Amino acid sequence: MLFREIMEMLGTSAFAISGALAAMRQRLDVFGVLVITFATAVGGGTIRDMLIGNTPVAWLKDQQTITVIFGSYLLTLIFRRYLRHFNRTLAVFDAVGLGFATIVGLQRGIEAGLSPAVCVTLGMVTGCFGGVVRDVLLNEIPLVFRKDIYASASMLGGLLYFLFAAWDMFRPLAATLSMLAIIGIRLVVMRYGWEFPGVKTPED
Amino acid sequence: MLFREIMEMLGTSAFAISGALAAMRQRLDVFGVLVITFATAVGGGTIRDMLIGNTPVAWLKDQQTITVIFGSYLLTLIFRRYLRHFNRTLAVFDAVGLGFATIVGLQRGIEAGLSPAVCVTLGMVTGCFGGVVRDVLLNEIPLVFRKDIYASASMLGGLLYFLFAAWDMFRPLAATLSMLAIIGIRLVVMRYGWEFPGVKTPED
Amino acid sequence: MLFREIMEMLGTSAFAISGALAAMRQRLDVFGVLVITFATAVGGGTIRDMLIGNTPVAWLKDQQTITVIFGSYLLTLIFRRYLRHFNRTLAVFDAVGLGFATIVGLQRGIEAGLSPAVCVTLGMVTGCFGGVVRDVLLNEIPLVFRKDIYASASMLGGLLYFLFAAWDMFRPLAATLSMLAIIGIRLVVMRYGWEFPGVKTPED
Repeated sequence: MLFREIMEMLGTSAFAISGALAAMRQRLDVFGVLVITFATAVGGGTIRDMLIGNTPVAWLKDQQTITVIFGSYLLTLIFRRYLRHFNRTLAVFDAVGLGFATIVGLQRGIEAGLSPAVCVTLGMVTGCFGGVVRDVLLNEIPLVFRKDIYASASMLGGLLYFLFAAWDMFRPLAATLSMLAIIGIRLVVMRYGWEFPGVKTPED
Repeated sequence: MLFREIMEMLGTSAFAISGALAAMRQRLDVFGVLVITFATAVGGGTIRDMLIGNTPVAWLKDQQTITVIFGSYLLTLIFRRYLRHFNRTLAVFDAVGLGFATIVGLQRGIEAGLSPAVCVTLGMVTGCFGGVVRDVLLNEIPLVFRKDIYASASMLGGLLYFLFAAWDMFRPLAATLSMLAIIGIRLVVMRYGWEFPGVKTPED
Repeated sequence: MLFREIMEMLGTSAFAISGALAAMRQRLDVFGVLVITFATAVGGGTIRDMLIGNTPVAWLKDQQTITVIFGSYLLTLIFRRYLRHFNRTLAVFDAVGLGFATIVGLQRGIEAGLSPAVCVTLGMVTGCFGGVVRDVLLNEIPLVFRKDIYASASMLGGLLYFLFAAWDMFRPLAATLSMLAIIGIRLVVMRYGWEFPGVKTPED
């Protein structure tokens, strides 16, 4: 239980730090950085909750998440000069965050009685749309649509979950395995720099 | 009934294809194209449902729409080299989509007991905001705000509906006629290239 | 009561006019300007209501707000050549709008039983995210993240409210004083051109 919570907080923290770093790169003021940090960390879960109708959305009632995000913001602000030495660590945290957020989102969909395809989509939204919100606010085409196997790792993990469930696997085990699959895919993809091809159109 | 469903699916398909084509133009990878395709096709109805509080939002519970969108995505991906020969057909589908989405959105507003002005707005949001979501995600100023008589065609159709209703017209007939008006306006506008003037400011 | 309503309408009107002016600067057509005007005026409260689950969101049921926004749109369109002589007046209205919207948003959070930190955030979202929506739709990095003490003035006012409340101050008085604090901060900041420093990153 404790282990699970620590992992979840590491994931949230990674999302928050990615938001803070992106906002600082655009030279926002300290306050703008704070807002982008929050929006990145809670964006995916917020959109999921608004789609399902789980309101007030989760983070409004969750002091722990708010504290973790605010702490990550302060640490990023203070140690920004040293964070570049931890790129690899942050990338691992981010993979953990994607894995956790995907499975949490998928389970919220199941609780709401939605179909597997929709649950997989909600998992992807939870894991990836914080980054989408971050990039939209910073006026960039969302990175997740352009680079790396990221949203696809999330959806593959979601599909695995339902495959395991179809085999009558014990649900917490299915959740853990598919989460590990997402984290593993991300680590391998980052190690070897894989990505999907862009679509070639006739104008090219 | 069958005819109505076929028309509705053609409209959804047209919205999906417009999203897929725009995403491919930005050279997103196959996965990014998929997400933009969905967001374009369901974006308007999703925002409407979140505004009214119709949650879970409609498409989460509608396998048929999801299937049509996914099919449109695959067809666009496979036949992208030939689609330019069908620009005119796609534009007609899109007009059909705008007409249907507007009237569906307006009716959801009436069911929620909202005022005519708000229902017309919800019809416009349903018809036009999928394209707005598409353009925001692709980092462009929404086309619908800049070009052509599009959002205005939707709102004019919505006003017609309430005019007909004020004459005590049989509601399904009012819905059909105002939907046809929207489609007709769009076809005429595209044929003759009409548009509203931009607003001139003193700096010009 | 009447005074309060007049102030609130002045604030809404200021938000609407700021949206209309920004949209005209981008040379949108008259219809695009209308949509941006609405989105700017109601955006903050809409996001707040969707986060809390107050649906249908407030403006859908509020004819008076809709009328004020539409009137502001028409006036801006007609008198756009003269509005530059009223920049200072508009800035004062905008400060009033920020103060009112913040306190209204904060009170909605309290009514929903949320924690003080979250209520302050909801106040800031209500006051500032209309401008964020405006800038995202117009494809710009939200001004509120880059310039001036704006979101921070809103949050400071929110903190003051809870400080006053902790002193057992009569709530309507606490609301009025914190609202006046926000307006005062904005007026002073605009007078002297204060702003927070951008965050310097090692790449600079």
